[in-house]
Amino acid sequence: MKIKLINPNTTQSMTDGVQEIALKAASLGTEVYSVSPSRGPASIAGYADKAIATIGVLEEIIKGDREEGADAYIIACFGDPGLDAAKMVTDKPVLGMAQSAMTVMRLIAPNFSIIGNLYGGMAGRKEALAKYGMTDVYVSDRYIGMSVLGFEQDPVRGVKELRRAVREAIELDHAEGIILGCAGFVPYADRLREEFPVPILDGITPAVRLAEALVGMGLKTSKVSTWNYPQTQEVPGFEFMKAAQIK
Amino acid sequence: MKIKLINPNTTQSMTDGVQEIALKAASLGTEVYSVSPSRGPASIAGYADKAIATIGVLEEIIKGDREEGADAYIIACFGDPGLDAAKMVTDKPVLGMAQSAMTVMRLIAPNFSIIGNLYGGMAGRKEALAKYGMTDVYVSDRYIGMSVLGFEQDPVRGVKELRRAVREAIELDHAEGIILGCAGFVPYADRLREEFPVPILDGITPAVRLAEALVGMGLKTSKVSTWNYPQTQEVPGFEFMKAAQIK
Amino acid sequence: MKIKLINPNTTQSMTDGVQEIALKAASLGTEVYSVSPSRGPASIAGYADKAIATIGVLEEIIKGDREEGADAYIIACFGDPGLDAAKMVTDKPVLGMAQSAMTVMRLIAPNFSIIGNLYGGMAGRKEALAKYGMTDVYVSDRYIGMSVLGFEQDPVRGVKELRRAVREAIELDHAEGIILGCAGFVPYADRLREEFPVPILDGITPAVRLAEALVGMGLKTSKVSTWNYPQTQEVPGFEFMKAAQIK
Amino acid sequence: MKIKLINPNTTQSMTDGVQEIALKAASLGTEVYSVSPSRGPASIAGYADKAIATIGVLEEIIKGDREEGADAYIIACFGDPGLDAAKMVTDKPVLGMAQSAMTVMRLIAPNFSIIGNLYGGMAGRKEALAKYGMTDVYVSDRYIGMSVLGFEQDPVRGVKELRRAVREAIELDHAEGIILGCAGFVPYADRLREEFPVPILDGITPAVRLAEALVGMGLKTSKVSTWNYPQTQEVPGFEFMKAAQIK
Amino acid sequence: MKIKLINPNTTQSMTDGVQEIALKAASLGTEVYSVSPSRGPASIAGYADKAIATIGVLEEIIKGDREEGADAYIIACFGDPGLDAAKMVTDKPVLGMAQSAMTVMRLIAPNFSIIGNLYGGMAGRKEALAKYGMTDVYVSDRYIGMSVLGFEQDPVRGVKELRRAVREAIELDHAEGIILGCAGFVPYADRLREEFPVPILDGITPAVRLAEALVGMGLKTSKVSTWNYPQTQEVPGFEFMKAAQIK
Amino acid sequence: MKIKLINPNTTQSMTDGVQEIALKAASLGTEVYSVSPSRGPASIAGYADKAIATIGVLEEIIKGDREEGADAYIIACFGDPGLDAAKMVTDKPVLGMAQSAMTVMRLIAPNFSIIGNLYGGMAGRKEALAKYGMTDVYVSDRYIGMSVLGFEQDPVRGVKELRRAVREAIELDHAEGIILGCAGFVPYADRLREEFPVPILDGITPAVRLAEALVGMGLKTSKVSTWNYPQTQEVPGFEFMKAAQIK
Repeated sequence: MKIKLINPNTTQSMTDGVQEIALKAASLGTEVYSVSPSRGPASIAGYADKAIATIGVLEEIIKGDREEGADAYIIACFGDPGLDAAKMVTDKPVLGMAQSAMTVMRLIAPNFSIIGNLYGGMAGRKEALAKYGMTDVYVSDRYIGMSVLGFEQDPVRGVKELRRAVREAIELDHAEGIILGCAGFVPYADRLREEFPVPILDGITPAVRLAEALVGMGLKTSKVSTWNYPQTQEVPGFEFMKAAQIK
Repeated sequence: MKIKLINPNTTQSMTDGVQEIALKAASLGTEVYSVSPSRGPASIAGYADKAIATIGVLEEIIKGDREEGADAYIIACFGDPGLDAAKMVTDKPVLGMAQSAMTVMRLIAPNFSIIGNLYGGMAGRKEALAKYGMTDVYVSDRYIGMSVLGFEQDPVRGVKELRRAVREAIELDHAEGIILGCAGFVPYADRLREEFPVPILDGITPAVRLAEALVGMGLKTSKVSTWNYPQTQEVPGFEFMKAAQIK
Repeated sequence: MKIKLINPNTTQSMTDGVQEIALKAASLGTEVYSVSPSRGPASIAGYADKAIATIGVLEEIIKGDREEGADAYIIACFGDPGLDAAKMVTDKPVLGMAQSAMTVMRLIAPNFSIIGNLYGGMAGRKEALAKYGMTDVYVSDRYIGMSVLGFEQDPVRGVKELRRAVREAIELDHAEGIILGCAGFVPYADRLREEFPVPILDGITPAVRLAEALVGMGLKTSKVSTWNYPQTQEVPGFEFMKAAQIK
Repeated sequence: MKIKLINPNTTQSMTDGVQEIALKAASLGTEVYSVSPSRGPASIAGYADKAIATIGVLEEIIKGDREEGADAYIIACFGDPGLDAAKMVTDKPVLGMAQSAMTVMRLIAPNFSIIGNLYGGMAGRKEALAKYGMTDVYVSDRYIGMSVLGFEQDPVRGVKELRRAVREAIELDHAEGIILGCAGFVPYADRLREEFPVPILDGITPAVRLAEALVGMGLKTSKVSTWNYPQTQEVPGFEFMKAAQIK
Repeated sequence: MKIKLINPNTTQSMTDGVQEIALKAASLGTEVYSVSPSRGPASIAGYADKAIATIGVLEEIIKGDREEGADAYIIACFGDPGLDAAKMVTDKPVLGMAQSAMTVMRLIAPNFSIIGNLYGGMAGRKEALAKYGMTDVYVSDRYIGMSVLGFEQDPVRGVKELRRAVREAIELDHAEGIILGCAGFVPYADRLREEFPVPILDGITPAVRLAEALVGMGLKTSKVSTWNYPQTQEVPGFEFMKAAQIK
Repeated sequence: MKIKLINPNTTQSMTDGVQEIALKAASLGTEVYSVSPSRGPASIAGYADKAIATIGVLEEIIKGDREEGADAYIIACFGDPGLDAAKMVTDKPVLGMAQSAMTVMRLIAPNFSIIGNLYGGMAGRKEALAKYGMTDVYVSDRYIGMSVLGFEQDPVRGVKELRRAVREAIELDHAEGIILGCAGFVPYADRLREEFPVPILDGITPAVRLAEALVGMGLKTSKVSTWNYPQTQEVPGFEFMKAAQIK
């Protein structure tokens, strides 16, 4: 089984981080490989970055289907950019980090909070929660108050703030599960698990395991209507899309 | 890995059917075994049957934890009887058939219908959909108009009605995925899959694969509050519960 | 008219407390009597206790129908354990404390808070609010921070905390009605009513009065589908259920 | 105990009909009396009629409080016109027909349909359902296709259509309870009850019994904020309102 | 184009204030004129005032249609009293202040808070938000803690409190748009806009511009069912309504 | 005032059609001009097309801001592709066709149906309705059963099917307003208005008029958080985005 992880931004170090976590997450016999698109935003924050990043996601999935024989795809960014569009260009399972983490968490905790870097408006979060049917089990977003880069540059303060955010989610918001909304937090997950008696999930691991389960069951994305292949037509400037159109 | 399936009714032939499906569903290296409680209803329809059946579910889970070394539990009935109570008496993952089927379906189809035997009121269905966050992706229930027993006795007519129900769900209700809400339908799933171009899921297979994924990630049920072990106290007439109480 | 109150736990002193309140609540000509099942948890907190307690509730209702000529039933615990199952085993009205208190409160206040003992997760509360259509008029849970037993042992501090919780609900949460979520608080209700200018309801009194109203109108539970009598079948270990099955 | 029913339209024959039903509904010892305002619409259909009728409702409640010693009020029209405003001008319980019927029905049936005269848009119905927390247990509106007057003039055809509407609600919509949304249907309720095995409620009877229950418990409307007495000010043209203002 | 603004209370100074804002808001070529009904409450707070004020609103709209040739109507009070009833007595567009402000805000901000005078219960607010489909983009109500009159008498303190309320909405509640829920605040809107980098809307301006847009498109209110003209009948005491009934 | 309409597909004939409608819709003194991106799908159906089309929308808006001095933007496709991303790259108002049509319709009709070409799954529709707060006033989608091209090729049959679809929406679904979900239908709107007594809206006209209203009020999109300019970073392959980043 071959799972392709697509880091939708163009920063290779983040792709490497994703691959590292994915390797630990994968079962014996599962091959995982992580890529970045050649074009797109260096990092992703907000609707515009997500829209731009979606192009690269689509390209990589079409390439994965035609050239690489991938069995499933993971969009390795907590915003799940382009998830619906991605499901149209392949019949292999496509999983997002946020949906995967929430889906698994719901099975083992009655509710959860999400730990993020910096407050950036809640519109996108609310849409994601509604899309995945998670509105009623979502408790809160809590922030460490440091950017992704800031966290990397000062991990001592970063971990301190991370612990504060987790503690506030549990004690003030009554969260019974914690989702780490940034890949940068994952190396510290085990330390957090020792301190806090609640499930603490990153997004990569659940996505890899769900992908394995879907592939293991031989399941493919429903192509009957909503996520059917794109219609046959010209797409000037995005000719790579032709390969995914209905034959 | 050892997964215990609990058929919450006391009819051994159904337990055997469950075990058969589970065996096919399990990955290499996963041991599955299916049991029925010694007491409880012969079959389950409605709130009262579910309430009675919950006692046996709790007994079997406590036994699984203390005597059998099970790693996860599956409540093998589409009504998921006793699921919340079951999560309190163990820290191992506990999965219901309905929640598992819906959870997996949501990852590969934008919506789904459920095929059942006979109309029996929608209150329980609505509660389940809300509980699992599936209200917005649920399309309809469709019925074959034959009891479980009736289906077994006249499989020719049964399959005909089953095909009609699936076709109506797809054509009239615009369902893009089909969940088989009765274990008796499972042997005919492959035939349906040939005819209808949508994902068709039974409940056992997704539950087994999700259980494998949860155990594989080393996840346990959050015990911090909602699903914590029961309080320490006397429970006359149900002494088996003492073994699950907080130490 | 004969109303049977079933305290679903097996602690006789609580049953006595229930009976005392019910006697004050009943109209002239209404006979009320309170019982505990012979088996079940000593007290009820969480899904597992509720599941176990449901068995005793069903037994007592069936007994009430067959041997005692009861006209209506009240499940005298704020969690309303087994309410739906109970409605299946009789056609007499069955009322829960929580639903009754909320139902009456909604007629006289635009919203309400619930005063409880100790925080225990909100999943059960949210389910109850949704089940009774009360989500939009619910304001908050406020807690005294003492167990049922603790309140009884130190009523001076208990009443102080109770007043604090009520005041916070009114002043901080803008509650315009207060529901006492524990029978132990009821003896202090009049004192609270003097101090706080909002309706303050216990659960027993509304349940008794609603039961009187339903019986007075000659109403019975709809048996057409959802709450119909259980199907006819064997129920090994729970033979008492046979008496309630469809003839 | 003295319950005042206010028929919000100015048609005396309807007021007489209301009084007749109320007399049958009332318990021994309850005095019921029904009035029409001296001004307002002859009958009520839609937002404008309801707005106009509200003036008379307020006048009659203020008169009931100051001159007649009423203990509770019932707005005897299925649209519950002016219910919130009415709760502001008295601290006695005020009940609407629709809310009362739905409130009682919810205790004995898992869902219900409403039988009306003629289709008139669903906006008002949806608002009422949301206001009373009944959206999830509402099944459908079914219509007899005859006006109030038409039903009275041709009761033979009227009853035939009424039976058709009830049957469609039960068989096609799976309603498990029926609310008669027009006082004119009430004389035929018993005949319907013989034929259809579901609870069939008019609006007057539940309102009378709930009013008795509220008065019996000594409950008054919460005046702390939402339904507090109107502010003290001039109200030219509506001087009767001065009597209800905060002192 | 002729737009009639109806201040639903009977205080002429407020009508003058409304007219002043409307004049600034109107496009070249739009005639705006503001009136108060001759009868009704001096100011509006709560359901009862709104119910009484609705009579004057209906009278003024009917007069506007029959005698004044108005092209559209604005109910110039943030509670939008009588909006649905008003839509029945004319086929010209009728706009409320609250709906207009929220409708425009939603196009330029992902969410908003409303600044009011004094806390007065949230039931009316919640109903309005649901009615206009704004529940999900509403953030909070914030209050200046001074009455309308108090604000006018001490504008120095008033503006200070206004700035505090806006700042709290933005910083504590994460509001990304601000709606001024009181006409008295409007003269200070520009000062607030300099200080706070979010859209700040009054209700009059959006209503005037939306009315212009609707009239400009030649649109009229749908009369097919919900907002059709009132039925033909006697309305003793409110004879002015006869002019609006279906011919 | 200068309003730029962006037809997000690359088919010039559709852009010409949009421009024709926009010219009729615009007020005196409003300049409207319509463009197509140089790259993107020939037509838009489904998530993938929308994702691809978003790139061109962003390019055209950035160009409109920097080179053309546009005051507002309209995304002239009923799927509103890229609306949120578009709001990030400019502070001028950006309007979508679907949101504009629904927003205006809600002011003049209590509910509406949408007429489309061919059934294509409802997931995107449901998301749009939720995003714009229109779920509760949406009645149905009705289809003519012909593609955009098919309608153009056989307008006689097309108009017949269009009339059928509108009539079914009104008579079977009780729609009180009709939104034409395809620009190709607009030339026949007047004919439909003669036949059907409900408001019938296209999407272009409301968008133009709302844009005029927003610009007329001097309003800009809130940039405080959700729709703030994109972060400053490299975006290889999409360098045009640099011009829109925070300075």
